[in-house]
Parts: sequence; structure tokens; C-alpha cells
Amino acid sequence: MTDFAATKAMFDLPKDVIYLDGNSLGPLPHAASGRVSDMMTREWGQMLITGWNKAGWMAMPTKLGDRIGHLIGAEPGSVVTGDTLSIKVYQAVASALELRPDRKVVLSDSGNFPTDLYMVEGLLRSLGPEYELRVVAPDEVPGSITEDVAVLMLTEVDYRSGRLHDMKALTELAHANGTITVWDLAHSAGAIPVDLSGCSADFAVGCTYKYLNGGPGAPAFVYVAPRLAERVRPALSGWLGHEAPFAFDLDYRPGDGIERMRVGTPPVIQMTALSAAMDVWDMADIQDVRAKSIELTELFIERVEAACPGLELASPRDPEQRGSQVSFRFADGYAAMQALIAHGVVGDFRAPDIMRFGFTPLYIDAQDVEHAVSILADIMTNRLWDTPEFKVRQRVT
Amino acid sequence: MTDFAATKAMFDLPKDVIYLDGNSLGPLPHAASGRVSDMMTREWGQMLITGWNKAGWMAMPTKLGDRIGHLIGAEPGSVVTGDTLSIKVYQAVASALELRPDRKVVLSDSGNFPTDLYMVEGLLRSLGPEYELRVVAPDEVPGSITEDVAVLMLTEVDYRSGRLHDMKALTELAHANGTITVWDLAHSAGAIPVDLSGCSADFAVGCTYKYLNGGPGAPAFVYVAPRLAERVRPALSGWLGHEAPFAFDLDYRPGDGIERMRVGTPPVIQMTALSAAMDVWDMADIQDVRAKSIELTELFIERVEAACPGLELASPRDPEQRGSQVSFRFADGYAAMQALIAHGVVGDFRAPDIMRFGFTPLYIDAQDVEHAVSILADIMTNRLWDTPEFKVRQRVT
Repeated sequence: MTDFAATKAMFDLPKDVIYLDGNSLGPLPHAASGRVSDMMTREWGQMLITGWNKAGWMAMPTKLGDRIGHLIGAEPGSVVTGDTLSIKVYQAVASALELRPDRKVVLSDSGNFPTDLYMVEGLLRSLGPEYELRVVAPDEVPGSITEDVAVLMLTEVDYRSGRLHDMKALTELAHANGTITVWDLAHSAGAIPVDLSGCSADFAVGCTYKYLNGGPGAPAFVYVAPRLAERVRPALSGWLGHEAPFAFDLDYRPGDGIERMRVGTPPVIQMTALSAAMDVWDMADIQDVRAKSIELTELFIERVEAACPGLELASPRDPEQRGSQVSFRFADGYAAMQALIAHGVVGDFRAPDIMRFGFTPLYIDAQDVEHAVSILADIMTNRLWDTPEFKVRQRVT
Repeated sequence: MTDFAATKAMFDLPKDVIYLDGNSLGPLPHAASGRVSDMMTREWGQMLITGWNKAGWMAMPTKLGDRIGHLIGAEPGSVVTGDTLSIKVYQAVASALELRPDRKVVLSDSGNFPTDLYMVEGLLRSLGPEYELRVVAPDEVPGSITEDVAVLMLTEVDYRSGRLHDMKALTELAHANGTITVWDLAHSAGAIPVDLSGCSADFAVGCTYKYLNGGPGAPAFVYVAPRLAERVRPALSGWLGHEAPFAFDLDYRPGDGIERMRVGTPPVIQMTALSAAMDVWDMADIQDVRAKSIELTELFIERVEAACPGLELASPRDPEQRGSQVSFRFADGYAAMQALIAHGVVGDFRAPDIMRFGFTPLYIDAQDVEHAVSILADIMTNRLWDTPEFKVRQRVT
């Protein structure tokens, strides 16, 4: 059984803040700063160029990949970290399309995170006018997996509502139709149990700065099913995905398996911070995290609905149908979220009217939830958001 | 006049090491570790998600871009940092090709760094069989800029020999032919004066972990000439290059000018280290750096040729024709370099027989050069490399 008091002690959280935005950017793991400082002074500073081998920098992308893979049901050696999620989406979809050259349609839904759609829009433009990005409503996905669909690209957990797609059922449906799947796990990895292997998923991608707590700009990851890895001719074929990067051949030859999805020089400093963050996961069981997350989100919904009648639940009511976040609609949601943040409860706002709250049992407990709701209720009851200070619209992340 | 004793004091160099490999990975700037530690604990730790605005993380890619731009003759607002050099090569070449849709050839040379060729090979494969990557010998480039060439992609300084291409003349030749240029400045930025604006360059890319000392895996940069920036439809069109990333529109609209070359979430920790490294450049004039670099390389060549008759110069003898590195050919170069490193002089080896030495006046002085040559001469004269320990081949970076 995961000791959540122990995991909470592994984070440096600001005093007087209840942080319900770890689904945007996870907090600082206590060990990360010292780990990075050590890497910089002892490894970079003293080993210099030899750190690539002596300190194991070159192997970090696959080692971290395996640690992440453990949380998402990936086979050892099937995940590699690097680049950003946008880049990994592009690489996965482009590589998937090459496996299905007779079809020209990528199917996605309007609940997908926009950058996934933007990246594929750009990719398909470059491939030619016969390619199409088809975007349907989330509930229309099953009926839209038609015979012309080469790739089904979905984000498992909707970034606004937290609605969960059924990965296993949709992957089966896709495969029955000859369609390759690319799953975006941005709001899944570290939030809910994922079983890529058990679902026979083809490709998956995700980021590590949300529930995995790797820090701002932490690298992304990509999964390729072992049965496909040796067949994939990777898009974005960079030198560190080459079979022999240091032979400096003029021609590209893909490396073994998942190694070929590497592109350029990996961000060693970011990876060191991520490595410290992954240590916390060694103390946690993702099934326990899920059970506790459901407790917390159920408690939050119950208390908010009792205390804040002006807020309308925008997430599925059935906990099995949602990820580890809860969203409420409120017309003045932007101002209300600013007021809430000013009072020490950090969630975030998504246009046009979504107040979004993430629940991460590694460092959020039931007492935090109760406390957050009492502050929210005070703001709503007394209209504390209705001031010029909070109603000014500005760019938020 | 740049005070090179003062710049040298800004780096943490290991005792008893003469580091002639800053052209692979620059050393640790003294301020970088503290700066990163502060960013992690005070910004990430305390500001959490609000750091994107409050700590200015979101603006770092363009602010750092301008600081790098200052060293390469780029107009303010024409450079942005992010991703890896491989990705930025892909983005620049793909975007350039869209500006010249009637032509299908990318011209490069066999002295280019392999990842540039690999990335373009992959790009062109996705664009279709009518596209061609044409690779010629470096001295054949001027005669190969024919009417079918859409994009000329060259690395200004050859990574093995240090040979310099004439950026101004080749860009003029390209433009006279209607060809768009993509210059890779990996071995130029911080090594030699570059005048992108004065050369009327179109696109340029580079990395920041070599002469700019940004640390292992530091982000790359991309330049787009202001006259083209608003015309470019960027390949790799990610959400942070969108006109309004936080509107979460389903359709991509390119952001203003260079902003559109951003892709995903920027690596804030790496960028913080790079920011500390760029502070050293505020103390230096790149013209002074070039003058001193020529002094150092001339001295090195003279001394090595006098003391080590077995080594054959592989770099241009005319300093105006080479970058800030010197390479020598030696059949047992791998073993000799291992022996040299074991004796405290760090250079690197490039297959099949190149011993490569980088000279970075920010922290290397004439005394270091004299000392390095005396150690090298001892190794060569007494065949100290001729032992099983040093002759074992292993992967080197």
C-alpha cells in the first residue's frame, strides 16, 4: 500500500498553497534541485565531454523511458524520452502513416489538445492534398473509424473535461478496421493506470511535466509497440536514432527498436530533474494512486456541489469515466479562478468557461480538498471574484 | 578590448585539464549551477504554474534568441531557441521548401554534419519521390547551384576539418539562382563573427552547447530573415507557435514573425543554464574572440608541426579559411587521443583518423596551448598511445 504521507514529504510545496494544478505543471520534488546541482557541478563541470559515457547521459533517454513505461504498461525497451510532446506526436503519426501508405486519413476528435491537431495539420499539408485530418466529436469516434482511416489519434483523457476514452475498446475497433492507433497520454501517465501492452496499442506519446513532475519543459516520451518497432521507418530521423551515430555515415540507418525514435542531443539537465521526479514513483503503486484519486475527486465534487450551486460539473460524474481532474463550468470562471489563486488555491482556467482542478494523491490529501472547497465556497458565496482586479483578462497557462 | 582573463574566471574548469573540446561541449559557467538552483527552488518550487508568466519562462525562447542573434548578426526578433538542432534543421528546410514549391532539390555537401543530411533525407522521403537530396563535395558546391535547386543547406564550418564556407558569396550565388539558403551555425556561433543580416541569409540554425556553453542538451536556435518571417508557413506547427496558444483553437494560425517557429513547451531548466552562459558573452566582443582564436590556432599548428612530425594537418592552413578548431590526421588517432585525454588534454576523435582540437579564447590561453602541445609531443615521441588500453575502440562522443 502506497504511503501517501511519505510521498507528500518528497515535494517542496509552498506554504499556504493548495496546489490543484499538477495536471499542468507538477511541483518540485525535494531531491530534484540537489540532483541537478550535482549533475551540473560534478558531471558537466568535472567530466565535461566524457560525461556522455562516464555519467551515463547517453543512456538516459531509454532508461527514463523504461521507468515511465513501467507506469503505462509498456514493455521494457519500448519507450524513449526526448523532444517535446508536439514533436513526438508528429513523429508518431508520420511514422504510423508510413505503415499504412494506402490510406490518407487521420481521425481525431475535438477534445484533443490543439497542438496534436496543429502538428498533424502541418504534417498532412506537407504530405499532399490527398491527406485529410478528420476531426469529429468525442462520442462520434467509434462510428467514424471507417475503412479509409489510416491512423486514429486520440488523447485518452480530455484536457478540459477529464473525460476518458476507452483505450482498449477503441484500439480493438481500430485494429479490426486496419487502423493504427496513436494515443496521447499527456493526462494519463501518472494519473491513471494505463496498459499499453494489454490494449495492443501501436504508438503512444506523452509529456512528463504534469503528473510525472519532471519540471517546466521536461522532455516528452514516445512508445512504439515491440511488434512494430523494427518495421518503423521513423519520421524525424536524427543522428541519435541512427544505428551507429558515431560512425558519421552520410546515410541514415535506423537504430535498434525504440532507439530509432531518438532524434537529437538529449536535454541532460532536464532529464536529471525528471530522474529525481521518477524516484518518487518508486514509492507509489499506480493502482493505489488511482483509488486515492477517485476518493479525492468524489469528495471534491460532492463538497463543491453542496457549497457552490453556481458551478456546473463539466466532468463525467462516473469516476470510471474520468481521469484525475474535475472541471466545473462558470460563466465568470476566469475571474473566479484568479480570485481562488489569490486566496491560495491554484487550479486553472480553460476558455471559455472551464475551471479545472487536478488531483494528484502523491501530494494532495483529503484535508487539502476540504480546505480548498471551503475557500472556493467563500469566494462564490461572497462574489469575491467580482472585482476589476480579477476580471481583467490576461494570458494564462 | 575583451578581458580574457576575466572571462576565463567565469568558468569552472577541472584542475589539471586543458580542455580543447569546447567545440563539442562547452564547460560549466561558474554562475550556471546557482542560477538553475534558484530557478528550480524559487521559481518552479514557489511560483509553480504561475512561473510561466511571473518568472518570464514563456518569453525565454525569444529573449535568448535575441542574445544569440547579437553574436551572429541577426536582426532583433529574428531568432528563437528551442528543440534540438536536428529538429530545427528539419523545420528550416521544410519551411524553405514551401517557399519554393516549383523546385524539388536540396543541395548539401559531404562535409555537412550527418544529422542534417539524415533529417532532410527523412523529410524528402515523406514529401515524395520527386524530391532529391543532392550531396556534393564541399568544393563542388558553387558549381552545383543549378536551376533546379530549391534549398542550399550547408554547415558553415566543417565539423571535421574546420574548413569555412564563404557564406556571403554562396548566399549571393544561391539568390542569383532563386535558391533559398539554410545555414547551420553549429561550429560558428560563438566561434567566429557571423553576419546573417549582412549576408542576406534566409534561414539559419545552430546549437548552444558548443561554443555558447549552454550545457549538455542545451536547446537549439533558428533564424528566419525578417523579410521572410511573415511569409513562412512553418513546418512543425506547434501550439506555442500559434497566434493565440491559449485560445485553444482547433485550427492553426501562425504567430507573429519568428514566434511561429516555436513548437512545444520550452525546456526552462536548460534555458536557465543557457542564460547564465550567455552572460559571459556580455563581457566578450566576438571580433576579439576571433582574433585571439586565430592567434591560438596558429600557435598550435606551428608548435605541433615542429614537435610531432607524424601528424598531418587536416585543417586549412590559412586561418581565414578555417573556424576555431584545428584537426590533424594520424592513423592511430583514436589511441593517441585516448592517451592524450588520459594525460589531461581533452580533444576528440572523428573517424577515421581525425584528432580534433577546439580553441575557445573565453577560457583557453596561449599558455594552455603550449602546455597541451608539450604533452602531445611527449605522447607522440614516446609512443605512449601504443598500449592495449588506448587502442581498444569504444564509442566516443
